[in-house]
Amino acid sequence: MVLVVSFPSWSLPPRLSKSIKYHHHTITEPITSQKHTHPPKTYKTFFLSNLNPESRNYLPLLCWGTNKKHRAIAIKSVTMVDPKMEEVLAPLRAAVKEQGDIVRQLKSAGAPEIDVKKAVAELKVRKKILEDKELALTPVSESFDRAKMEDLLKRRFFYDQSFAIYGGITGQFDYGPMGCALKANMLNVWRSFFIIEEGMSEVDCSVLTPEPVLKASGHVERFADLMVKDLKTGECFRLDHLIKSALEKLAAAKDTKADLKEKIADIVVKLDGMTKDEMGAILKDFNIKSPLTGNDLTEPIEFNLMFSTHIGPTGLIKGFLRPETAQGIFVNFKRLLEFNQGKLPFAAAQIGNAFRNEISPRSGLLRVREFTMAEIEHFCNPNDKSHPKFSDVANTEITLYSACDQMDGKPAKITTIGEAVSTKLVDNETLGYYMARIQAYLLLVGLAKDKVRFRQHMAQEMAHYACDCWDAEALTSYGWVECVGCADRSAFDLTQHTKATGIKLSAEKTLPAPKTITVTEPQINKGIVGKIFKKDAKAVTEALSKLSLDDLNSMSDSLNATGKYDLSEGGSTYSITKDMVTVKTLDKTVHVEEFTPSVVEPSFGVGRVMYALLEHNFRTRESDEQRTYLTIPPCVAPLKCAIFPLSSNANFQPFIKQLSAEFRKVDISHRIDDSSGSIGRRYARTDEIAVPFGVTIDFDTITDSTATLRERDSMEQIRLPLSDIPDLVRDLSSGRKTWSEAKEKFPTVEAKQAANAAE
Amino acid sequence: MVLVVSFPSWSLPPRLSKSIKYHHHTITEPITSQKHTHPPKTYKTFFLSNLNPESRNYLPLLCWGTNKKHRAIAIKSVTMVDPKMEEVLAPLRAAVKEQGDIVRQLKSAGAPEIDVKKAVAELKVRKKILEDKELALTPVSESFDRAKMEDLLKRRFFYDQSFAIYGGITGQFDYGPMGCALKANMLNVWRSFFIIEEGMSEVDCSVLTPEPVLKASGHVERFADLMVKDLKTGECFRLDHLIKSALEKLAAAKDTKADLKEKIADIVVKLDGMTKDEMGAILKDFNIKSPLTGNDLTEPIEFNLMFSTHIGPTGLIKGFLRPETAQGIFVNFKRLLEFNQGKLPFAAAQIGNAFRNEISPRSGLLRVREFTMAEIEHFCNPNDKSHPKFSDVANTEITLYSACDQMDGKPAKITTIGEAVSTKLVDNETLGYYMARIQAYLLLVGLAKDKVRFRQHMAQEMAHYACDCWDAEALTSYGWVECVGCADRSAFDLTQHTKATGIKLSAEKTLPAPKTITVTEPQINKGIVGKIFKKDAKAVTEALSKLSLDDLNSMSDSLNATGKYDLSEGGSTYSITKDMVTVKTLDKTVHVEEFTPSVVEPSFGVGRVMYALLEHNFRTRESDEQRTYLTIPPCVAPLKCAIFPLSSNANFQPFIKQLSAEFRKVDISHRIDDSSGSIGRRYARTDEIAVPFGVTIDFDTITDSTATLRERDSMEQIRLPLSDIPDLVRDLSSGRKTWSEAKEKFPTVEAKQAANAAE
Repeated sequence: MVLVVSFPSWSLPPRLSKSIKYHHHTITEPITSQKHTHPPKTYKTFFLSNLNPESRNYLPLLCWGTNKKHRAIAIKSVTMVDPKMEEVLAPLRAAVKEQGDIVRQLKSAGAPEIDVKKAVAELKVRKKILEDKELALTPVSESFDRAKMEDLLKRRFFYDQSFAIYGGITGQFDYGPMGCALKANMLNVWRSFFIIEEGMSEVDCSVLTPEPVLKASGHVERFADLMVKDLKTGECFRLDHLIKSALEKLAAAKDTKADLKEKIADIVVKLDGMTKDEMGAILKDFNIKSPLTGNDLTEPIEFNLMFSTHIGPTGLIKGFLRPETAQGIFVNFKRLLEFNQGKLPFAAAQIGNAFRNEISPRSGLLRVREFTMAEIEHFCNPNDKSHPKFSDVANTEITLYSACDQMDGKPAKITTIGEAVSTKLVDNETLGYYMARIQAYLLLVGLAKDKVRFRQHMAQEMAHYACDCWDAEALTSYGWVECVGCADRSAFDLTQHTKATGIKLSAEKTLPAPKTITVTEPQINKGIVGKIFKKDAKAVTEALSKLSLDDLNSMSDSLNATGKYDLSEGGSTYSITKDMVTVKTLDKTVHVEEFTPSVVEPSFGVGRVMYALLEHNFRTRESDEQRTYLTIPPCVAPLKCAIFPLSSNANFQPFIKQLSAEFRKVDISHRIDDSSGSIGRRYARTDEIAVPFGVTIDFDTITDSTATLRERDSMEQIRLPLSDIPDLVRDLSSGRKTWSEAKEKFPTVEAKQAANAAE
Repeated sequence: MVLVVSFPSWSLPPRLSKSIKYHHHTITEPITSQKHTHPPKTYKTFFLSNLNPESRNYLPLLCWGTNKKHRAIAIKSVTMVDPKMEEVLAPLRAAVKEQGDIVRQLKSAGAPEIDVKKAVAELKVRKKILEDKELALTPVSESFDRAKMEDLLKRRFFYDQSFAIYGGITGQFDYGPMGCALKANMLNVWRSFFIIEEGMSEVDCSVLTPEPVLKASGHVERFADLMVKDLKTGECFRLDHLIKSALEKLAAAKDTKADLKEKIADIVVKLDGMTKDEMGAILKDFNIKSPLTGNDLTEPIEFNLMFSTHIGPTGLIKGFLRPETAQGIFVNFKRLLEFNQGKLPFAAAQIGNAFRNEISPRSGLLRVREFTMAEIEHFCNPNDKSHPKFSDVANTEITLYSACDQMDGKPAKITTIGEAVSTKLVDNETLGYYMARIQAYLLLVGLAKDKVRFRQHMAQEMAHYACDCWDAEALTSYGWVECVGCADRSAFDLTQHTKATGIKLSAEKTLPAPKTITVTEPQINKGIVGKIFKKDAKAVTEALSKLSLDDLNSMSDSLNATGKYDLSEGGSTYSITKDMVTVKTLDKTVHVEEFTPSVVEPSFGVGRVMYALLEHNFRTRESDEQRTYLTIPPCVAPLKCAIFPLSSNANFQPFIKQLSAEFRKVDISHRIDDSSGSIGRRYARTDEIAVPFGVTIDFDTITDSTATLRERDSMEQIRLPLSDIPDLVRDLSSGRKTWSEAKEKFPTVEAKQAANAAE
C-alpha cells in the first residue's frame, strides 16, 4: 500500500503508529468492490465484529471503485447538508458516536490495547458505512467514467505500465510525454509556490541510504518484521506482537491451567529470538486467528517494505532505497541551519523519488512501488510555533474533518483556518499556515474545491511523537484519497539521529535577556591529569567533564572524605585524587538557549495529486459522449498551445514555422497538428490532451496575417493578429491574463463563422 | 568509475566495447597523481610496455589532479598552436603517430586481438604523454586552486558528502540549496533548449528495472562477470576471457607439449561453467599475469556494476536500479512512435537518476554512485540521417579531436560542424546537429569555449554497433573530462528488445511510389485446419504463417510429391495435407517500407557538466586572494538577486518586504542578507554563491525610492527606481537584457560613491 503522504504515522513501529494500517485500508480500498445486495440494517450491539459480514453488505447501490468496464460512477460533493439526507444518516451517525464513545471510555479506563484496537476497528467500519451512505445520498453533480478516462490516459500516453513489452510489473508506471510534462509543470509550480515564495532551502539528497540511517529513523525495525495476513481481509499483523498478545490473553483467562501458563510465559520470553518456522508452529499449535475478525491467517511472511541492496563492491555495506525523502533533510540539518545563518524558523524542501516494495500494488497511480514526493521540513522553536505570514491566510475557507467529529459520526465542516487555529482544533499557526497553502496549491493545479478536505488523524492512528496531523484528501472514484500529509512531527527525527550518531542536532535562540543559572562543574587541573595518566589523560578529562550532577556530587563527597575517587571509563578504572579536580557550584550568565527544533512536515504524493487532478478535470462534451477532454489549468497543462494549419496547403507553412519559432522564444510548449483530420476532429484530439489554446491558420491568415485562437473549455474563438498571439498565450498560460480579458480585447468569432472559415 | 556519458561503449560486453575501460582510466585518472621527478626521455622502442614506469615519470611539472592542499593548478586552453611549442612537441607527436601506424598495421594484417590491444594500450600511454606536455607548455591564462574551490562549495553547501553524520559513504553526494538550485536551473534550461526548442517527447520511466530488460540490453551479461584486477594499475579483466586467451596463446606456442595442449583444450571447453574458485585455481596453476603489463593480478572478484534488488514481496522478481535512463525510452518505442503519429524522425528525452555501483568512487562529482542523466534518443531512418535544421548550425565553430588525429599525434582542430559533416569526419547531419547543439548548451550554462572539445572514439573503443561517437569533453583540473556523449547507436537497442520480446519495434515509411514485390505465402484453408486440429488449429495456422521461404518451398514440394507434410510446432508434429494449404508465389504492391530506426543519442552527465561549470567559473578577486567568487551565468545561477538593507534600521524594512514580494511575483529567486557584516563583506558573501545581482537599500531609498543595483562580475553599480528593479532583474537573469543595456538606461554609481552612500 503506497501511503505516500502519511509516512509519519505508518512507517514507524506499530507501538508508535497503532492501527493506521487498517485505517488506510478503509480509505483507499473501499469495501464496495464486494457484492452488495442486502437492504440496510440497524445496529444494536456494541461490538459488531461478528456483524461485519452483514454490515459490509449494507452499502450504497451506487458503488465506488467498481472494476466494471465503462460503468459510470457518481462523484459528489459532501460539504452541503440537506435535512432529508440527514434524516437517513441520523441512525448511522448515532451508531458511529456510540462506538466512538466506547473507544473513549475504554481508553480512559486503561483497557487492554487489544480491546481498544478491536473497538477502533469497529468504529472504522461504522465510519465507512456512514461515509458511503453520505456519498450515495449526495445529489449527483456529474458522472464520471473511470474506464473511459483510463482509456484516454493510456491511448494518449499520459502514463502506462512500465516494461509492458516484457509483460510489465505491477506498481510501476512510465510517464509518457503528456504525463511527464504535466508532472514537470506541477513540480515547477510547486517550486515557485513553496520554495521561491517561502524562501525555502531546496536540497537533493541520495536515494541509496545506508542501514544505520534508517535504523535510527525507525524504518528498519518496522519493515523487517515477520507478518501474517488475515486470509479474508488482507489485514497484516506483526507476528511476534500477535502471538504475544494472543498468548497473554490466553494466560490471563480464568480457566487456563498452570502448566499452560508456564509454557506461555516461556514462549513469550523466547519470542524475540525465534525463527519464522518456530513462530509458524506456535500459530498452529495455539490455533491463533485474526484478533479483529477471527478469520484464518496466512503462513508467516517475511516482508520488508524497503528495497534493499548493497553499496560498494564488497557487498558489506547494506543499504536501502529511501522510502521517503525526509531523512535526507534531517541528516543535513546542521549544514542547513548554518546555511540559514543559524536562525530559526527555516524550511528545507526536497523533490525526489522514493521507493516502497508494496505487497500488492493496485489502484493505478495511487499505490505504486516508486513515486515522486515533494516534502517540506519546517524547523521551528517548539515553544513558538507562530507563523509570521499566518494573518495572510487566516481567512482561507477550509473543509475540516476533525478527529472528534469522526468519532461522533458528524460530517466534515467548513470553517476558516484562522478560526480552527484560534479554537486549537488545529494545533498551531505553522501547521495551519501550511494547511492553507497546501489547499491553495491543490486548487491552483486544478483540484476541485468541493472535493478536497482535511482529515485529522485520530489519536490512535497518530504516531506518538506527532502532536497533530491532518491529511489533505481528494475525493476520487476510489473514495477519499490522501494526497498530502501535514504533520507536526515534534523533535522526533532530530532526536533519533542525535542518539544514533552522538552529533547534537540542535539550534540556539538568543534569550530576550541574559539569564543567570547555577551550574555544578568539575574544575580540572590538566597538568596533573596529563602527568599521571599520560595517553589516557584526554579520555579521563572527557569522562570527568561528562559526569552527571549526581556523580559530581558523589565524587566531591568521596574526594572530601577519602581524598580519592574511582572513575570508570571505557572499561578501565582511574584513581582520581584531590589535586586533580575540584567540584564547584557557581552562577553563570547565559545568553542563548539550546533546543532541538520541532518539525512541521507537509509531504506531497505527487502521483496522487496528479491522479486526483486528472479525475477532477475529466469531462465529456455535452454534444457528444465520445468526445472526452481534460480541463487541466493552463499553468500545468502539458502543452500550452496547438497550431492547426487548415489544410496541407503549402502557403500555410511559413506562418506555422514562424509562429512555432515565436512560441519557442517565449518558452511556450506547443504542438503542430498538420494531420489530415477535419479541423473539428483535430480540436477534439488536442482537447483530449488538455491543450488549453489552439491557433488555426486559415486562408484569411495569408491575406491579413490574423488567425483564430480557441479556448479549450468554452470552445470560444477570438480573431487576432498573429504577432499578438505568442505574448497572449504566454500570459494566458501563466495566469497573468484571463480568457475574458482576451475576449474584451479581440473580437469573438462565432463557432459557425470559425467553422466556415475552416471548411 | 562513473562513465556517465559513455554508456554505449563500456556497458556492453568487452567483445563489443573492447578496451574502452582502459581508455577511460587515462581520461579521468591522470597518472600525474604519482610523483614525477625525472627529466624527459626520448622513445626508441615500438612496444613501450616495459618502458611504462619510465614514461610515466615523464610528466609535466605543473601537474593535474594533485591531492596537495591549496596547490595552485594551471588551467590552460589548448586550441592555439605556437611554433615554439610545436618544436618541443614534435618528437612526442611522432612517437604517437609511429604507434598509431603500428596499430593500423596490426589491424589490417588481422593480428591476434591481444596484440592489437597491447599496441593500443601503448598508443594511449603515448597520447597521454603528449597531451600532458601540451597542457604544460600552453601559456598559463589563469591559475586554479581546487582546494580553495572545494572549500567554498562545501562551506556554502553547494554539495557535500551524503550521510556525513553517519560517517558517509564514498561516491554519494547531497546537493545543498545552492547546488540543488543550480542543478534545477541547468535542467530547466536543458528542457527549454532541447525538449521545447526541438519539440521532443519527454518521458519519465521507472528506475527499478526487471532483469530481462537489462539482459536484452547487454547489461546483465556485462556486469555479472568475474573479474581480476592488475595489482598495480587497477586495470580490470574479465576472468574467463583472460584465461582463455592466455591458455590459447600458451597452447599455440611451439614448445608446448601435447599433453599440456590437451589439458588446455579441456579447460577451455569447460571454462563457461566453472566456479570462481576453479577459475582462481587455474590463474594460480598457470601463473597468469596481466597481458598488458605483466603485473600480478588480484584474486577473482565477483562484481556487478548494477545495484540489484528484488521487486515484490515474494523476492522472485530480480531487478536492478537502472544504470542509464536510455532503456526506458527504448522499451516505450511503440507508444512514442504512436504518440508522434507514426512519423520519423522524432526524439524522446528523459531526465532522471541512474545508479552504478562503482568499485572505488572518487574525484568528487565526477565518479559517483548515483547521478542525474539527461538523455535524448533521436530515432531516424537509417538511410536518411539528414537533419532539417542542420543549416542553422552548419557555421558553428567546434573543436574536434578526431580518431585519426589522435592516432597521428596531431592536435585537436577548430573547424565548423558543416565542414566536418561535408568531409564525413562527422558521420551524418543528425549527429553533427546534436554536437553543435550540445556545445551551444554547454556554453550557455557557463562552460568556457576554449576548454571544450569533442573527442571522437577510436575504432577500437567504439561499440561495434555504433557508426560514430564523439564525447564532449571539458578541461578541468582532473584533465579532459567527458561530460556528454553523442553516439550513433544504429538499430542496436531496438533490435535487441525485439529479439527478447518478439515484439517488433519498427517504423514504416511511405514509399515515394508503390513498389511491386514478389512474395511466397501459404494460403490456408482455415475451415479444414479448424475441423482437423480443433483446439490446436490456431497454433497450426500461426506456425504455417511463420514458415520461412525455404520451409514453404520444401512443404510445397512435399505436398506435391506425397500429398503430406509434417509440421513441427511446440514439441508436436502435425500432419498437413494438400487440402489444408497451398503455397503461392505472387506479386504484391506495397506502399510502405518497414525498417528498424537508427538512434542518435546525446547523453548528458549532469553532475559532470556542473562540475566543469563550477571550475570554469571559479575566480579570485585581483584585489584580495581570499575573496573568491563564481561567475555562473545568471540563467543558471542558484539565486538571481540579493537584497541588502544597509543596516538594521527599521525604516528599511517596508522597502525590503515590498521588493521581496515583487521578486516573488516574477519568480525571481532571491535572498535577503540583513546580517550584521559590512556591506562589502556581505557583497563578498553573495559573490561566493554566484548571486549575479544585488540591490542595496540605503538612506536615499527612504527619501527617493531608488536603490543601487550591483553586478557581480564587474562589481559595477547603477542607481534606479525601486519599481524598475524586478523587471530589470528578470530580464537580466533570463538573458533578455545585458548589463551594458542596463548601464545605458540608468546612471552608473562610482564604487566610492556607492560605498559612501553605504557608510
